[in-house]
Amino acid sequence: MADAFERLKERLAQVTDLNKVVRLLSWDQQTMMPLAGTGHRADQTATVQRVAHELFTDPAVGRLLDELRPLEDSLEPDSDDAALIGLTRRDYEKAVNVPSALRAAMARATAEARPVWVKAKAEADFPSFLPALERIVELKLEYVDRVADGAAERYDVLLDDYEPQTTTAEVRTLFEELKPPLVELIAELREREVDDTFLHGDFPPDRQRALALDVIELFGHRPDSWRIDPTEHPFASSAGRNDVRITTNYHPDSLESLFSTMHEYGHGLYTHQLPQHLERLPTGQACSLGIHESQSRLWENLVGRSLPFWQRFYSRLQETYPEQLADVDLERFRAGIHAVKPSLIRIQADEVTYGMHVMLRFELEQDIVEGRVALRDLPQRWNEKMWEYLGVEVPDDGHGVLQDVHWSGGSIGYFSTYLIGTVASVQIWEAARRDLAELEEQVGSGDFAPLREWLGEHVHALGRKFSPQETLRRATSSSLSAQPYLDYLRKTYGVA
Amino acid sequence: MADAFERLKERLAQVTDLNKVVRLLSWDQQTMMPLAGTGHRADQTATVQRVAHELFTDPAVGRLLDELRPLEDSLEPDSDDAALIGLTRRDYEKAVNVPSALRAAMARATAEARPVWVKAKAEADFPSFLPALERIVELKLEYVDRVADGAAERYDVLLDDYEPQTTTAEVRTLFEELKPPLVELIAELREREVDDTFLHGDFPPDRQRALALDVIELFGHRPDSWRIDPTEHPFASSAGRNDVRITTNYHPDSLESLFSTMHEYGHGLYTHQLPQHLERLPTGQACSLGIHESQSRLWENLVGRSLPFWQRFYSRLQETYPEQLADVDLERFRAGIHAVKPSLIRIQADEVTYGMHVMLRFELEQDIVEGRVALRDLPQRWNEKMWEYLGVEVPDDGHGVLQDVHWSGGSIGYFSTYLIGTVASVQIWEAARRDLAELEEQVGSGDFAPLREWLGEHVHALGRKFSPQETLRRATSSSLSAQPYLDYLRKTYGVA
Repeated sequence: MADAFERLKERLAQVTDLNKVVRLLSWDQQTMMPLAGTGHRADQTATVQRVAHELFTDPAVGRLLDELRPLEDSLEPDSDDAALIGLTRRDYEKAVNVPSALRAAMARATAEARPVWVKAKAEADFPSFLPALERIVELKLEYVDRVADGAAERYDVLLDDYEPQTTTAEVRTLFEELKPPLVELIAELREREVDDTFLHGDFPPDRQRALALDVIELFGHRPDSWRIDPTEHPFASSAGRNDVRITTNYHPDSLESLFSTMHEYGHGLYTHQLPQHLERLPTGQACSLGIHESQSRLWENLVGRSLPFWQRFYSRLQETYPEQLADVDLERFRAGIHAVKPSLIRIQADEVTYGMHVMLRFELEQDIVEGRVALRDLPQRWNEKMWEYLGVEVPDDGHGVLQDVHWSGGSIGYFSTYLIGTVASVQIWEAARRDLAELEEQVGSGDFAPLREWLGEHVHALGRKFSPQETLRRATSSSLSAQPYLDYLRKTYGVA
Repeated sequence: MADAFERLKERLAQVTDLNKVVRLLSWDQQTMMPLAGTGHRADQTATVQRVAHELFTDPAVGRLLDELRPLEDSLEPDSDDAALIGLTRRDYEKAVNVPSALRAAMARATAEARPVWVKAKAEADFPSFLPALERIVELKLEYVDRVADGAAERYDVLLDDYEPQTTTAEVRTLFEELKPPLVELIAELREREVDDTFLHGDFPPDRQRALALDVIELFGHRPDSWRIDPTEHPFASSAGRNDVRITTNYHPDSLESLFSTMHEYGHGLYTHQLPQHLERLPTGQACSLGIHESQSRLWENLVGRSLPFWQRFYSRLQETYPEQLADVDLERFRAGIHAVKPSLIRIQADEVTYGMHVMLRFELEQDIVEGRVALRDLPQRWNEKMWEYLGVEVPDDGHGVLQDVHWSGGSIGYFSTYLIGTVASVQIWEAARRDLAELEEQVGSGDFAPLREWLGEHVHALGRKFSPQETLRRATSSSLSAQPYLDYLRKTYGVA
């Protein structure tokens, strides 16, 4: 039995290594690779993914899992080993149901869809993208059929790929609770006159870069374990706990990179503090996209837009951009970074309107999966919801239904994790505050070690041992809930 | 049969992809990776190498090769397909003798040795590196035992990894022919008073970088397929024909990066012009390290130190570093870059003393493999030979036996390829000159397309279809020979 367990762990270590290599290939492609290398890279990535999939779905893994059932039953359910066997069984059963032909077809469909989407977006031409989207949805539905076993709703299957063991019904309940208060908040706050013109102007990229380095140094990172590079669409990646790679985009006309750096720092810190002793095992990886996002949103918003942080850091910002900010006092600046202005796209949304972008996509995706909308009608449905939820008129499909990469990449089921994470970030922050009586003073004095350590101990160290909900319960002693987030928004925006 | 061949090619394509991924992991480690990622990277590299090895040494490959023997026999021996089957059989028979565990152990040993060597070199502390070296040599000797079948000398096995189908005896003969004339040349030339003080001084790295970009633009490269980055020890790598990555080191006090950039350009051009239709097959890769080096040395020396090149480029150099070079005329500059000054390390050696560094290592490595030297005595043996061959006193082991990365990377058997390539570079240059009557004028006018194309057609396009010797014969109508190189040196240095 011990031998079978060692063999399983050795196999899983290899699969984990290969998954990290895939992440590095993707990071390299988005930051370093010469453009003409795209063709080679597609082959290389497909080969590593295929090899990883074959290693993991090998019938030998299934036999080892069968052999290990008595061991699993004899262990404490919370133990590392029981969690590893249980998680591996769950992953394995899902993976073996997907024929490699279907995987290959999806890889091909999304690879082919990407340039079609890029062009369609640039030309605001949804009909040219429609056939590619139809193919992707067709394959996604086939995927759902293959692994739907026991799911209450078809969309559950897709959601589970990003937020495991979380049902559509649970998310729907959460979002239904959020929606009316958010709509009300937006209606009230959009009427406020807030000056944020100083957030746009001339922000030289070299100074943005120095500032980004300052921020991650202040938050705390080991320079021998992290790097930060420019890219088109910022993301965080990691080829291991001590090989954290965050990215940002130094738009020369905005301060965006500052907040995106804080956001990606949160992702980076999470991977940096994952449990070392489970490093090459599935249980030692990140729990879910929602938990990941709770970490990035916490550093971006709960820390990065807070008064204590800016009381300390604003003079540094003013010194960096005196032409822009010398005449803007802290109060005006803080109001500016909290302006509520309904916009066309999530990545530019303020904290209050953010959720509506996510709900819109969550609802449309369920309609797609349940066949309640014809794909050709998506632009109209999108634009109607944008108007209904945010009072925003979509000028063309490039700024509407074609606005981001998710669908062309086959990422259907992903979007709700942005709001799940945002809601969870407030619950986690409140829990940290209960334990760390001086948290706000620490933020104000630039002492982030207690917060980093608290997150490490209560969230990061759990890795993927438990479901996202269980992880949140262990970290906060509460379940995912709308109220703390709504309270936080009302308090931040001074709304009764 | 056609089906078996397709299956073999599909398998080889995957193995080739994985080998390129290993190269990318190594490039990344040496240019981008945060230092603390070393441990993860060792695991990842070992896993990818292991998977590639297992895919390639799968008995199914042996069965396919058996099945394909009639096809191979029926094909023109020079055809792509016959070359592929023959080469694959040779590689396969070598690889099946090496257990995965041995390969993994070597990958791990070298990954772990690297930081140990870096520190030992910085501190000139050979004893701290000795255990890592002992482990590497132990594994190398185990490797030799596994695959020595039929080799006349144990060192042949190691040499074959870098210069296939080339024996230690052949190299020894070549080097014995070179040694006395080189020793004589050095004795004569080292007495000349040559001023090269202007090559050392203040060369700001940002200007070096601009100059490096200028040089590779002048030589000719597609910016969408190449990149150049700083690193400690310059090298060229590639994750595919259109993903060429060269590196250099902008030492702020010397012009070294200029010549190292030309050198790495030669390597890069070779990989860039490898046969496209064989891209994911063993036959489409570089032939050998010697042939690779012939390309880098050709661009560094035959082009990059030539009078026609500097007649065109010297004013650009003077404009870049007026403080250093405004008062140095072309003739003085040319004499300076040809100064013969025995030095401590190959990478700083002039064209005449260069070979002695290689012979020293070639001899020491044979002594190691044959057990004629205890590893702890290497520093002393090294220092004695440096004195004997070059009259150079080694101040400490950081500048002696620890001076470069090869042994810490497990590269034993590699070193002679530097001199093989240098010798071959002259033969290839002479052959190009026979075909391109205007070659020197073209170099002088900055028209490098004819040379690039000639090299592409006569050397690069052959890929790994033939042995290095056969490749050289096809390119130059001659075998590897000391005489053209000696003649070139005598002519360049004006020695009768």
